[in-house]
Amino acid sequence: PCCAAPSSAMLCCAVPSRAMPSLAGGKRDDDLILPINSSLSVTLHQDQLKTTTTASASRDFVEDRLWLNGEEADVGHPRLQACLREVRRLARKRRGGSAEDAAPLNLSYKIHIATENNFPTAAGLASSAAGYACLVSALARLYGVEGELSEVARRGSGSACRSMLGGFVEWQRGERPDGRDSLAHQVAPETHWPELRVLILVVSGKKKQVGSTAGMQTSVDTSPLLKHRAEVVVPERLALMMRHIRDRDFEGFGQLTMQDSNQFHATCLDTFPPIFYLNDLSRHIISLAHRFNAHHGRTKVAYTFDAGPNAVIFTLADTVAEFVEVVRRSFPPATNGDQFVRGLPVGSVSLPEELLRAVVTEPVPGAIQYILHTKPGPGPQLVDDSSQHLLGPDGLPRRRS
Amino acid sequence: PCCAAPSSAMLCCAVPSRAMPSLAGGKRDDDLILPINSSLSVTLHQDQLKTTTTASASRDFVEDRLWLNGEEADVGHPRLQACLREVRRLARKRRGGSAEDAAPLNLSYKIHIATENNFPTAAGLASSAAGYACLVSALARLYGVEGELSEVARRGSGSACRSMLGGFVEWQRGERPDGRDSLAHQVAPETHWPELRVLILVVSGKKKQVGSTAGMQTSVDTSPLLKHRAEVVVPERLALMMRHIRDRDFEGFGQLTMQDSNQFHATCLDTFPPIFYLNDLSRHIISLAHRFNAHHGRTKVAYTFDAGPNAVIFTLADTVAEFVEVVRRSFPPATNGDQFVRGLPVGSVSLPEELLRAVVTEPVPGAIQYILHTKPGPGPQLVDDSSQHLLGPDGLPRRRS
Repeated sequence: PCCAAPSSAMLCCAVPSRAMPSLAGGKRDDDLILPINSSLSVTLHQDQLKTTTTASASRDFVEDRLWLNGEEADVGHPRLQACLREVRRLARKRRGGSAEDAAPLNLSYKIHIATENNFPTAAGLASSAAGYACLVSALARLYGVEGELSEVARRGSGSACRSMLGGFVEWQRGERPDGRDSLAHQVAPETHWPELRVLILVVSGKKKQVGSTAGMQTSVDTSPLLKHRAEVVVPERLALMMRHIRDRDFEGFGQLTMQDSNQFHATCLDTFPPIFYLNDLSRHIISLAHRFNAHHGRTKVAYTFDAGPNAVIFTLADTVAEFVEVVRRSFPPATNGDQFVRGLPVGSVSLPEELLRAVVTEPVPGAIQYILHTKPGPGPQLVDDSSQHLLGPDGLPRRRS
Repeated sequence: PCCAAPSSAMLCCAVPSRAMPSLAGGKRDDDLILPINSSLSVTLHQDQLKTTTTASASRDFVEDRLWLNGEEADVGHPRLQACLREVRRLARKRRGGSAEDAAPLNLSYKIHIATENNFPTAAGLASSAAGYACLVSALARLYGVEGELSEVARRGSGSACRSMLGGFVEWQRGERPDGRDSLAHQVAPETHWPELRVLILVVSGKKKQVGSTAGMQTSVDTSPLLKHRAEVVVPERLALMMRHIRDRDFEGFGQLTMQDSNQFHATCLDTFPPIFYLNDLSRHIISLAHRFNAHHGRTKVAYTFDAGPNAVIFTLADTVAEFVEVVRRSFPPATNGDQFVRGLPVGSVSLPEELLRAVVTEPVPGAIQYILHTKPGPGPQLVDDSSQHLLGPDGLPRRRS
């Protein structure tokens, strides 16, 4: 009430479907979050997987504060602080050392940040990638910083740099030790391949568990195969993958996506002690996809798995209904199944007997919680309507409806 | 009754604990069974895992016949026929083209073969390796062939060549396209490392299942990581492994054994479509071993997995009782557990509380059927006592007691 209205900026960011070829395993610098190899991902559509963030600054705020999905959270997280520091540094640089008060916003003001996901945070859907991309975009807007920001987002969460752009995005490894050239760049916009669809099979059960792991740094140190992959295999595959995308060649794109997901997980297993992200259910899904493709005599669906148990399936619009029905038959929903398919609408089909016989071989009831149907989407979007901001004029979260 | 007593030879052969570093994945020639890389194994003791074979020949036999564990079986199997043909060829060569009837046994006589295992055949315990080693040894003895026979055994089953010798055995890849230099040779005899023990964790449930596979040939064609492993990693590791064995260095031996098992399975996953031999239970066992070693601050147990779900654990005699108890607590036997530990005797211990807390974290009841306790053993052994032969004077299987 007594406060001057804070300056605010609100942005929406989408999740990258990490791991198109999930080439981004292993970091060469854990603090700067530099990857051991370049990678490629598809930014998914915000209608299905979106993080929304409002950042506000005011002379009246007494401390930095953060709210995640309405709950106040620790603002002191080192990665969050690193992003904040970097954006302020860029703002200062941009202002060229001119007097602070001449700038649109005093850099010493405390900030309030509120962020929300339109999907369950714990489901292993790359919420941190979208989250940090959104945070950095909102802060940059707040401070009037423009230009290349994927490097800053990378400091929050590696794959966040890929969420800074829409469509098909390459995260270039870069060569510099300080990471200034480890950036995202757009290979093709989200409109490039209108038929491409993404199905996320969200598995039931507990949060993602990593067996006996010390994380990705271990891989770099202990896996001879990861080294070979990064140095020899990935550069070739990345070039090939870009060609498949350019040509909208689903056969090539799908095959390479599956091969590269498998190879990523192979290098995790070659780590010592080994890291396992795939489990028996992942194997069921992988076998199902291969049987489905074999039945059709070509690549109609392609799986990819990131550092978690959920499967991401790439397919084309004309295959969605059939494959969704195959998944429903293979993993019959535990409840009545009303919420089994979410996101973009899916038509209904009845499956031919010979397809069922060939593909649906050993159903595992209840193993998949739901399927999220989505497609490639744009990068960060500014929300102009201030009535939608997550923080009110008092700088505190609005009551959520 | 009217027959002249047949000439017979009986031999016992043991199973190789395939996969010490399970380097033998992928064949460069499927017909000759040439491996893509050299490998190393430990031949296990016949007291625990033994195949016994009697081969007889007589002018009175009217056709070749074969009995497996007392049941008549198809003698026309191409690999069996290949072994038979090779041994006869060597016999003929040895006789230097001299008159057939001057030799101890006419090569045109029909043969009868009976073979038995002292362990369940379907349990995935490399029965074919011991079986072909035993077959070739018995045939060679019958025909008076001496010298290098591992090449012949290899034609029956790749890893059979390693069962032709006791102790620590290298299967050398060889360079020749005809495979004449792809042979087994002994790195150290079974007496070399008296404290070394082997625990086979035989998992419950169905026979080994291979997901979507076309077998090892697929690996060679589709896995860039397997190629790199075979060309670069294995030669270095094999030299290192021999040094560890020579020095009886369990720390080095154990670490490398685990790393190499993991890498072998990583290359299976890099195959397309991928091959999965490890499952969720394998992962439990792997994690358990790492927790056990971490608790002790050094490598006390080392796992290795071959092309099946059973785990082979290398350890030293002073660790057996403790680790067996850890396994019993981690995979509580479904029944009363009387038969849970088999083979060499295992002492009883009570586990310290802090070990239990640190290592036995999430028990999986009934997942392991039994533990077989064994150790390195000798190569093929001749059984002189003809009353023990599996075929009687009539050339037919004796009634089994």
